[in-house]
Amino acid sequence: INSKLPNIETSIFAKMSKMAADHNALNLSQGFPNFPSDPALNALVDQAMSDGYNQYAPMPGDFGLRMEISKKIENLHDRFYNPEIEITITAGATQAIFTIIAATISKGDEVIIFTPAYDCYAPTVELFGGKIVPIQLKPPFYEVDWQEVADNISSKTKMIIINSPHNPSGMLFSKDDMLELQDLAEKNDLLVLSDEVYEHIIFDGNVHQSASKFEALAERSFVTASFGKTFHNTGWKMGYCTAPENLMKDFQKVHQFVVFCVNHPIQKALATYLKDKNHYLKLSDFYQQKRDFFLHLMEGSNFKIVPSKGTYFQMLDFTEISNENDIAFAERLTKEHKIATIPTSVFNEGRKDFKQIRVCFAKTDETLAEAAKILREL
Amino acid sequence: INSKLPNIETSIFAKMSKMAADHNALNLSQGFPNFPSDPALNALVDQAMSDGYNQYAPMPGDFGLRMEISKKIENLHDRFYNPEIEITITAGATQAIFTIIAATISKGDEVIIFTPAYDCYAPTVELFGGKIVPIQLKPPFYEVDWQEVADNISSKTKMIIINSPHNPSGMLFSKDDMLELQDLAEKNDLLVLSDEVYEHIIFDGNVHQSASKFEALAERSFVTASFGKTFHNTGWKMGYCTAPENLMKDFQKVHQFVVFCVNHPIQKALATYLKDKNHYLKLSDFYQQKRDFFLHLMEGSNFKIVPSKGTYFQMLDFTEISNENDIAFAERLTKEHKIATIPTSVFNEGRKDFKQIRVCFAKTDETLAEAAKILREL
Ligand SMILES: CSCCC(=O)C(=O)O
Ligand SMILES: CSCCC(=O)C(=O)O
Repeated sequence: INSKLPNIETSIFAKMSKMAADHNALNLSQGFPNFPSDPALNALVDQAMSDGYNQYAPMPGDFGLRMEISKKIENLHDRFYNPEIEITITAGATQAIFTIIAATISKGDEVIIFTPAYDCYAPTVELFGGKIVPIQLKPPFYEVDWQEVADNISSKTKMIIINSPHNPSGMLFSKDDMLELQDLAEKNDLLVLSDEVYEHIIFDGNVHQSASKFEALAERSFVTASFGKTFHNTGWKMGYCTAPENLMKDFQKVHQFVVFCVNHPIQKALATYLKDKNHYLKLSDFYQQKRDFFLHLMEGSNFKIVPSKGTYFQMLDFTEISNENDIAFAERLTKEHKIATIPTSVFNEGRKDFKQIRVCFAKTDETLAEAAKILREL
Repeated sequence: INSKLPNIETSIFAKMSKMAADHNALNLSQGFPNFPSDPALNALVDQAMSDGYNQYAPMPGDFGLRMEISKKIENLHDRFYNPEIEITITAGATQAIFTIIAATISKGDEVIIFTPAYDCYAPTVELFGGKIVPIQLKPPFYEVDWQEVADNISSKTKMIIINSPHNPSGMLFSKDDMLELQDLAEKNDLLVLSDEVYEHIIFDGNVHQSASKFEALAERSFVTASFGKTFHNTGWKMGYCTAPENLMKDFQKVHQFVVFCVNHPIQKALATYLKDKNHYLKLSDFYQQKRDFFLHLMEGSNFKIVPSKGTYFQMLDFTEISNENDIAFAERLTKEHKIATIPTSVFNEGRKDFKQIRVCFAKTDETLAEAAKILREL
């Protein structure tokens, strides 16, 4: 067969995690915690299985879970999503993102993304015949130049994809950023895909500026979220998508053929677990302690570091350590120094002029200490 | 937005299950068991969560599970699928089917399906710009006329989708059918999608003719399977896809962006559970008892019935009961007689000249007895 994605390879996450295993290296590459998910949540899943919730969930998801999500968003962002028709539970945020693009992007449509960008946006857009228009965010601060965005909008632009807190840079969109975005989206009648999977991991007293919060923006936005990132179980593959009714209708038309519905017992468990706000409101403090611990240990290293403002990732600039490109550097670190990280050119359409690697600090303090020890010696 | 699937509505399964609930009717519509999944399997999932398998699985799936699947297929069909590169675990068979079509079908490609056909094939093909070429199988025996298939192959034909045991008719492809298919696929250089989700539910001593069994056919086939159907937990949304390496490579390129990977603890549990062959080899007997029990109770009814040869579905011909179309008949049955079934025109591109409804007999004997009592009185 002729490949429909001829230039696509296995994702960098699979590649670096495998290299870490092969070389017995600390794995700070792929983003996942190395500490357990809450046994109380596991017990709720077990209970749901015993209670017999083992057959198909409703196609949009368990209604109780959709209600809890609706309440959570209303509390946090003062926007009401009707659980009947504006929320769908998905097999992780990746499936939500795929489905949004599948439901909206056709041949010739242009989609603006900000690079470095999470690696699934571009190939998914291209699979549906869309064209990616990348806007480069430059280290060290990765700020958006909204005039540049405006200049890149054409009559073919259909969607802007944003991701705040931003993977891999740890940058946050400010309220002003969101207002600029809202303005451009309205003026040019654009859809927005707001990937907010790190919504509950925000540092230094900053506030998450969800697309849900801005009325006119929310009217044209799909917002995606991840339970795996919030509850330390990325392997359960649970997330959700919210959107106004007219958009959600088209999302669900595709969703029902992508997966029909998602794991039922876990949905039942999450519906209960989500009732306790501490389970997500304390997450920022939890990860801020980890970020601060790691940065403290890295003091005096030869990496240039701008502290992450959100996500569980930290960028490290190795300009003063090596002239290698980021892929060569990351591979050498894995093989020789036994620490796996993510070379960030994979998020940058292969551009290798930025000397940045990304580490995941969703790790035990012990792992972070070991990692910092290795990195500080470089 | 302009809908990409303007003619698509919510699936008949969601619709009839909801109507059943609203009217407090017995639900024999959507295909799922109303008895529990094995507590021993639930316990294995719980164990995997306690053991800490809560982060991302490898993208193609847990290797242990892929090995068990490989062994199972080699034992049953004498074909070796390399677990390294020819097997991928999916979020149910639906996600496998979607991903196969996404990876292979482009604008203008023709895809042959046999109607009545499961409802996800056609819209998924159309989402990728493909054209459906339906071949009608006629009641009561739903046999394939391979000359008709040959006559419908054009230079644009890219794929044939088959489904044996066949939902909704309960028909099976014979060895001769598979040889005819193999011949046509080879001669015309076609891909085959073989949806084998009811592979372990086959009656009257018949044998499942998997596409894996026929060497030249297997070389050009994607085969999909479902754990939910085999282990009574459709709500866990676990399945898999097998294909030769060159096809699986393209499948995985898309799969990684559709879901990246699927539920990890359940994969660990299934890897253990699958080691005991009784867990699937006894399923045909289990469901044959149910089919026979139901048919016995239906003796003397006014439905014309050709016994299902596989799947957990039975077609009922209501020609002698009513002149209504199948949708009106099924709705009336739900509302007035308190029994929900599936009107089969939804599988038939809306053709309403066949007076057939489908019942799911994956139900307790008690439910089947209640159902038969209602149906016999019509
Ligand atoms: C789906 S594996 C990648 C996990 C992740 O979000 C990341 O490492 O950026
Ligand atoms: C995904 S809901 C439909 C279940 C099923 O396979 C059927 O009823 O045919």
